[in-house]
Amino acid sequence: MSEEQDRIKKVSIVCSKGSLEGIYPALIMANGARMEGIEASIFFTFFGLYAVLKKFNNKIKIATVGNPAMRVPDAKGMSLPTILGAIPGMSAFATSMMSKEMEKLDIPPIPEFLEMIHDAGGHLYACKATVDMFHLTTDDFCDEVERVLTVGEFYELSAGAQIIFT
Amino acid sequence: MSEEQDRIKKVSIVCSKGSLEGIYPALIMANGARMEGIEASIFFTFFGLYAVLKKFNNKIKIATVGNPAMRVPDAKGMSLPTILGAIPGMSAFATSMMSKEMEKLDIPPIPEFLEMIHDAGGHLYACKATVDMFHLTTDDFCDEVERVLTVGEFYELSAGAQIIFT
Amino acid sequence: MSEEQDRIKKVSIVCSKGSLEGIYPALIMANGARMEGIEASIFFTFFGLYAVLKKFNNKIKIATVGNPAMRVPDAKGMSLPTILGAIPGMSAFATSMMSKEMEKLDIPPIPEFLEMIHDAGGHLYACKATVDMFHLTTDDFCDEVERVLTVGEFYELSAGAQIIFT
Repeated sequence: MSEEQDRIKKVSIVCSKGSLEGIYPALIMANGARMEGIEASIFFTFFGLYAVLKKFNNKIKIATVGNPAMRVPDAKGMSLPTILGAIPGMSAFATSMMSKEMEKLDIPPIPEFLEMIHDAGGHLYACKATVDMFHLTTDDFCDEVERVLTVGEFYELSAGAQIIFT
Repeated sequence: MSEEQDRIKKVSIVCSKGSLEGIYPALIMANGARMEGIEASIFFTFFGLYAVLKKFNNKIKIATVGNPAMRVPDAKGMSLPTILGAIPGMSAFATSMMSKEMEKLDIPPIPEFLEMIHDAGGHLYACKATVDMFHLTTDDFCDEVERVLTVGEFYELSAGAQIIFT
Repeated sequence: MSEEQDRIKKVSIVCSKGSLEGIYPALIMANGARMEGIEASIFFTFFGLYAVLKKFNNKIKIATVGNPAMRVPDAKGMSLPTILGAIPGMSAFATSMMSKEMEKLDIPPIPEFLEMIHDAGGHLYACKATVDMFHLTTDDFCDEVERVLTVGEFYELSAGAQIIFT
């Protein structure tokens, strides 16, 4: 339907939100791109960075299901009302329903989803300013995160890509 | 001001949020594109999909005006705190004011806006994963929705386009 | 790492959200672009427009720190629960922490940041529909705002650019 030269060949996704429905679109678009043979990178920034914090990202789903007011301490001892409360307008019921329905559709929990994208050749990066702001180190990240990038490096790596800010 | 070859020729808008101020930017950017002779498609996904649910999208405006806590049952009997509560930080007053001001600017309510974009040659698509997640059928959509697309098909249809994630 | 011709040469950022964590990504991406010699424009629309309202944008930071429920009257006498409440899921503590950490990273408050981007050659524009909707005049904007643009003019000015909707 379009000329080969116009085909989307590379996407550079900026994941900036820390809620379930903020993170999933980024992961789904990256995974969908890889399924089509499109190069894909995700740059986790601001609260989106929580998606790649290994002590936290396996708790997002559990925490939001059934207990939206629950607070999960992160690696630094700072409570994270951010994530749990950052699902604007989603009641516990809707959140729970969404999680169950995603399971039925074989949409995996965040940690497994990151691994799947990584194994499919997608690249995961963390934003340097956010890492500094939250006083994180590379030890805080799940293994699939390749590097910490500045905004400038993000733009360089995005050469030839569609930038998609989710 | 720029060479003809660099002109934006096609936009592929992903509408992912279900609030008034989440949906309108997608519609306004698609409509503005058509007015300029730019090809335009909107891919409704996640809670953005509510914008094309015919039993619901004509109620978004009424429900948010004057009664932000009101819950509107959708076609499936699931209440939709999502939409009504998903207007982060907007008081009932601000919501009401916004709606009135948009009327004055001839920005139409969502159903009429979709029809206008469709009649101007814009394309409206629904996201397959979301459709499955919410157990919807094509009967649930307003007539202007052409097809249900996978993420892969979305990327194919976006050849040569600027992807804009709202 | 990529061919020169594929390099990102121009970004056209749409800033549509009125919260701190909605506005900063737009400013950081525009500033980062200018640091790399990339052309950068920001188009402020919907609640993102508050970032360039001179009687308000110097209050966003103070108002959100320590007092998320505080309401600041804008130039038109309309209270702005929008901005202050529009930080989904961020507690006063997190907001305060974020502001302090940004200071340490030399990320300036919004008014100074706009000036920095402008001085670095970035362009700031306000969305006409939003300006009309909120009954604003050019006097309401900080000096760095060059022009009020329609959506059509935005697309024209975005020729050759990556559109990034934050």
